[in-house]
Amino acid sequence: MEVLNRQRCFEGEQLRVQHRSQSLDCDMTFSLYLPPAARGGVVPLLYWLSGLTCTDENFVQKAGAQRYAAEHGVAIVAPDTSPRGEGVADDPEGAWDFGLGAGFYVNATESPWDRHYRMYDYIVDELPALLAEEFPVDVERASIFGHSMGGHGALVIALRNPAKFQSVSAFAPIVAPSQCPWGEKALGQYLGPDRENWKNYDSCALIEAGALQLPMLVDQGDADDFLEEQLRTGLLEQACADTGYEATIRYQSGYDHSYFFISSFVGSHIAFHARALEHSLAED
Amino acid sequence: MEVLNRQRCFEGEQLRVQHRSQSLDCDMTFSLYLPPAARGGVVPLLYWLSGLTCTDENFVQKAGAQRYAAEHGVAIVAPDTSPRGEGVADDPEGAWDFGLGAGFYVNATESPWDRHYRMYDYIVDELPALLAEEFPVDVERASIFGHSMGGHGALVIALRNPAKFQSVSAFAPIVAPSQCPWGEKALGQYLGPDRENWKNYDSCALIEAGALQLPMLVDQGDADDFLEEQLRTGLLEQACADTGYEATIRYQSGYDHSYFFISSFVGSHIAFHARALEHSLAED
Repeated sequence: MEVLNRQRCFEGEQLRVQHRSQSLDCDMTFSLYLPPAARGGVVPLLYWLSGLTCTDENFVQKAGAQRYAAEHGVAIVAPDTSPRGEGVADDPEGAWDFGLGAGFYVNATESPWDRHYRMYDYIVDELPALLAEEFPVDVERASIFGHSMGGHGALVIALRNPAKFQSVSAFAPIVAPSQCPWGEKALGQYLGPDRENWKNYDSCALIEAGALQLPMLVDQGDADDFLEEQLRTGLLEQACADTGYEATIRYQSGYDHSYFFISSFVGSHIAFHARALEHSLAED
Repeated sequence: MEVLNRQRCFEGEQLRVQHRSQSLDCDMTFSLYLPPAARGGVVPLLYWLSGLTCTDENFVQKAGAQRYAAEHGVAIVAPDTSPRGEGVADDPEGAWDFGLGAGFYVNATESPWDRHYRMYDYIVDELPALLAEEFPVDVERASIFGHSMGGHGALVIALRNPAKFQSVSAFAPIVAPSQCPWGEKALGQYLGPDRENWKNYDSCALIEAGALQLPMLVDQGDADDFLEEQLRTGLLEQACADTGYEATIRYQSGYDHSYFFISSFVGSHIAFHARALEHSLAED
């Protein structure tokens, strides 16, 4: 593991870290913000999962999240969105919605993707273990959020691991990848044609199948060009209504799919997670 | 004039605007944040001047300033850092510290630069006139700030036009371009070899020559790699001490030259300007 950069930010530190990933079988880079409180002991951890085409850097540079993380005393780790490097298979035509930058947070089962594309294991198991060993973060007190493809990843990972996360939130998530072109393209190639195998990576399917309740917040801009065809927030509302799953799903008037939308509400999301993390501490 | 983009951000609007510039004789693009208060009438205006290699977009995407602008009800305009387009002369070797992206906010007098490189006139005269005509901003209630080369630009423009600005601030400014390699390279080519002509674009020289007082705030990271050779904040402290010019010059421990530094203190700068702008209103 190598710390590539260490930059002061809101009295804490913004780090960029490179390491060899076992689950992905390649070198990976993630960003980690440590709030000033981390100088005095371990702090709770937020996972941020980014959307299509992003690396670990987009959120760190554009969301303006460090201010809120510093205020609430939480760390934020922002991993990359796919395996990287020579030898990692990519879409033959270099599409931006599949392959590099588009791992969809799944464990691929189909060749050639199954060799490296195991982002689910990377986020759920490998990254927490590394962080717990190397940094002053308490991975037992963790929450997860993300944007678009990363909102899908955050919801799926939290719904499948409710004991590992105190809360989950998402900006403009792909709520039902089984029912939109981005998701059908990606899951069809990573997981093969049998749609039964997709259900483990589909938030709406997981909720319909009886996922355990945890605090959930979703923000969706109503001027988001991807809302109707790809994101389909209404399907999440329906799944929650069908099953009595309690989620706060907000439509934000006039907002689009960009980081201007994320930056406007990231403070609200971090406060939401901080409350859940404090609550978990009070219960200990 | 054409509005290229209009995106909701912190309940206000982030705009990107293209127009034909008379002073620069080329098409220019600037970014403009209008806070929610601008829907109800004209609001005060902050000019942000960016550093070497930047366009109008860096600050808008990375500084996290919109939150504070929304809170204080001020607009922020972020112009580009040089003339642009085909036919605009550039450094023959494409250097990043001269030519395109490096206008240094001067009116060039030397060929071939004198045709397009008139960023001083663009910021001081043309841009305010355009903004006053097209947007709900009060250019009579304005302040100015910037970073590095743009910190130099902000200080010089405010010192030479104290009646036009209520306050000035800078992050890691080049305080004495006559006395550092970046400045000597740029001013030598834009203005020619006679260093007397450089004094109008040198903050320390302007203060030494008796510039009028206006509220001034400077933040400088003490881990900034450019501090010793290029920025030379000590020369500004000296010029202020020599002349009794009152400026708040702060060294920020551990901070470098990046937007992580800017984002950490941009709220403090905007609050500083908002106080000066409110004070000016109370005096009217």
